[in-house]
Amino acid sequence: MNRPIDFYFDFSSPYGFLASEKIEALAAKHGRSVDWHPILLGVVFKQTGAIPLTQVPLKGDYSRRDMARSARFHGVAGFRMPSTFPIATQAPARIVLWARTRDPALAARAIHSLYRAFFVDDIDISNADNAAAAAARSGAEATAVRAAVDDPTIKDALKRENEQAMGRGVFGSPFVIVDGEPFWGLDHLDQVDRWLGTGGW
Amino acid sequence: MNRPIDFYFDFSSPYGFLASEKIEALAAKHGRSVDWHPILLGVVFKQTGAIPLTQVPLKGDYSRRDMARSARFHGVAGFRMPSTFPIATQAPARIVLWARTRDPALAARAIHSLYRAFFVDDIDISNADNAAAAAARSGAEATAVRAAVDDPTIKDALKRENEQAMGRGVFGSPFVIVDGEPFWGLDHLDQVDRWLGTGGW
Repeated sequence: MNRPIDFYFDFSSPYGFLASEKIEALAAKHGRSVDWHPILLGVVFKQTGAIPLTQVPLKGDYSRRDMARSARFHGVAGFRMPSTFPIATQAPARIVLWARTRDPALAARAIHSLYRAFFVDDIDISNADNAAAAAARSGAEATAVRAAVDDPTIKDALKRENEQAMGRGVFGSPFVIVDGEPFWGLDHLDQVDRWLGTGGW
Repeated sequence: MNRPIDFYFDFSSPYGFLASEKIEALAAKHGRSVDWHPILLGVVFKQTGAIPLTQVPLKGDYSRRDMARSARFHGVAGFRMPSTFPIATQAPARIVLWARTRDPALAARAIHSLYRAFFVDDIDISNADNAAAAAARSGAEATAVRAAVDDPTIKDALKRENEQAMGRGVFGSPFVIVDGEPFWGLDHLDQVDRWLGTGGW
């Protein structure tokens, strides 16, 4: 059985970024590939009543410290909190969905380009032109990528992606599902690793 | 330098219980002891706007699954979600503060007795008599323990403990502070382990 594992993430999620840098190697170690699912946490948070982590009293200060510390702990180079944060992530999410229907490998490269643009190079990828430029650096055709952001079909696809995610119980980022088993958070990659290796416990 | 590490917890916190079963061995591995700090998350949550994890839409269902799975992952035997949950934890917290002024080792034993009573034996330790009986099994004198729950001095001590915790940025359970460095959550014990071994990164 070599079913892909599902990786749900929001482009404005620091822990999602850090996990995105680790998940392919982790999956490959167990003969798996990754199905990438960009979601909009803002939509999910309306259902759960959550607010962005960095805006919670006490927890916000801690989380900013922990994000940078966790980047170093996991060996992800170059992480820095973006100067504009959090951001709306419709533009990069739509670009990924557009790329995914064409070429999953291209979509994966675009995700890494977009995430690094935001969390390493401090480029505001909520801006459609910035997002298209970042995705183009991963090999996507720039004009087509930019057009995808405003494509009604892709907009609908993102809505469906969000609804499907919530239907599967996804409420945060990163969120990994392995053969139906859900794991929330960067900190659960060790459990994902063991689950992939053992099939559960 | 062998300063104790600080362990903050609420008796109604499943992840706090799981971490309480691991923290002493982890500290001892690095030549450290544990200073135990019972707090009331209900008071803290008024400041952060949080609600009990299991009551959050989507997240609640996940967390119940994850608590049991994490107990097995960390090798903590006998864990089960209590039939009454969450509970008020003034009674067990006051018993610990009372014991701590007398004998830190007794306080540590009482914590394990109380936590296991709640999360293994499904005894409602919000009830002062139940809590006193559980603590007495760890060697505390039953009548004195029961009296501590209603002692105004101990009540004040718990208020101060909470205020000090929030003053140090504590907002959840478990919460560990190592030489000034804060770590939130059972999932961060791996970072605590590395921090104790390396002094930071």
